[in-house]
Amino acid sequence: MEELRRRILEEGEGIGHDIARVDMFLNHRIDTKLLFSMGNAWAEHFREDRPDLVLTVEASGIAMALAAAHALGDLPVVFAKKGETVVQQENLVQAPVYSYTHKQENIIRVDRHYLPAGSRVLIIDDFLADGEAVRGLMSLCRQQEAEVVGVGIAVEKGFQPGGRFLRENGVKLQSLAVIDRIEDGKIILRPEEG
Amino acid sequence: MEELRRRILEEGEGIGHDIARVDMFLNHRIDTKLLFSMGNAWAEHFREDRPDLVLTVEASGIAMALAAAHALGDLPVVFAKKGETVVQQENLVQAPVYSYTHKQENIIRVDRHYLPAGSRVLIIDDFLADGEAVRGLMSLCRQQEAEVVGVGIAVEKGFQPGGRFLRENGVKLQSLAVIDRIEDGKIILRPEEG
Repeated sequence: MEELRRRILEEGEGIGHDIARVDMFLNHRIDTKLLFSMGNAWAEHFREDRPDLVLTVEASGIAMALAAAHALGDLPVVFAKKGETVVQQENLVQAPVYSYTHKQENIIRVDRHYLPAGSRVLIIDDFLADGEAVRGLMSLCRQQEAEVVGVGIAVEKGFQPGGRFLRENGVKLQSLAVIDRIEDGKIILRPEEG
Repeated sequence: MEELRRRILEEGEGIGHDIARVDMFLNHRIDTKLLFSMGNAWAEHFREDRPDLVLTVEASGIAMALAAAHALGDLPVVFAKKGETVVQQENLVQAPVYSYTHKQENIIRVDRHYLPAGSRVLIIDDFLADGEAVRGLMSLCRQQEAEVVGVGIAVEKGFQPGGRFLRENGVKLQSLAVIDRIEDGKIILRPEEG
């Protein structure tokens, strides 16, 4: 998506070889206009898949999920909650998410009632790196017998395996921008397809 | 706000004497249409105060802040991050937030660059109870010499002191629904003013 790509190139900062700092417009300070344009881009891509629910994980995924949900006709948004391992409760469905950055396993969880069987789920998240968060969200859907009709990502780290894993597994994935590499403080994007 | 009040009465659940469960439409599963209506209600109330930035705290405040920001002409949204006490960093401004529920002090923090001096800040949050979160956000603004032009809340617990404290201190506060008390599993709302 051209506008997001431009903002990443103009304002984003690369740190080391794998951190892309875009919190000045995406996930600490949110450029609301850009955000709703991103929502429109996802909606255009996934409308034909007739999602009826947008699923994400707190916290920074929430804004993006809402923008997509709004553009798709005000679909409900469900966000999984993070936190320590919780005791299994009857009304909760859980999945482990391993964080390579923090070298620890977290649990994400959703109230079963909010992710009913047969839902057509569009998963939205801000970053895709190792793909652990998306895999966790897909696991919640699988446990609930809800169908994942697509995955929309703002920024994919193309040099990490999450995107390839999803594509190889037949998941319809749309990343609005794909980072090819990060070097000398710069973020280098992969040319847009098509 | 009539629609929010109706949903609280029809779907909300009271637990004990101080927990109002509204996560089926407000802060776990989000009813996107209701959310944007709430954004319109806040915008109508605060437009004359000319906010240029909406400030909230992760996670469940983000959706509401965005809805308000969108209705006010796509203002930027900044969300404070929660977490353990962090080492003071030059670019971070912090404030303590005491949680009466969890009996512990948390730190909220914002990158100074995203809350510039002279900003006209509208604070938005989902719940107002003891008012600790709002006071923390106000402290961030004070430290940054940004002006708080108003505070918009979805659900105020009228039986807890946060709302009274803010009003007595001359803060322009709009709560879209005020809970009078919770008893026998029911949420009883305070009649709307005016």
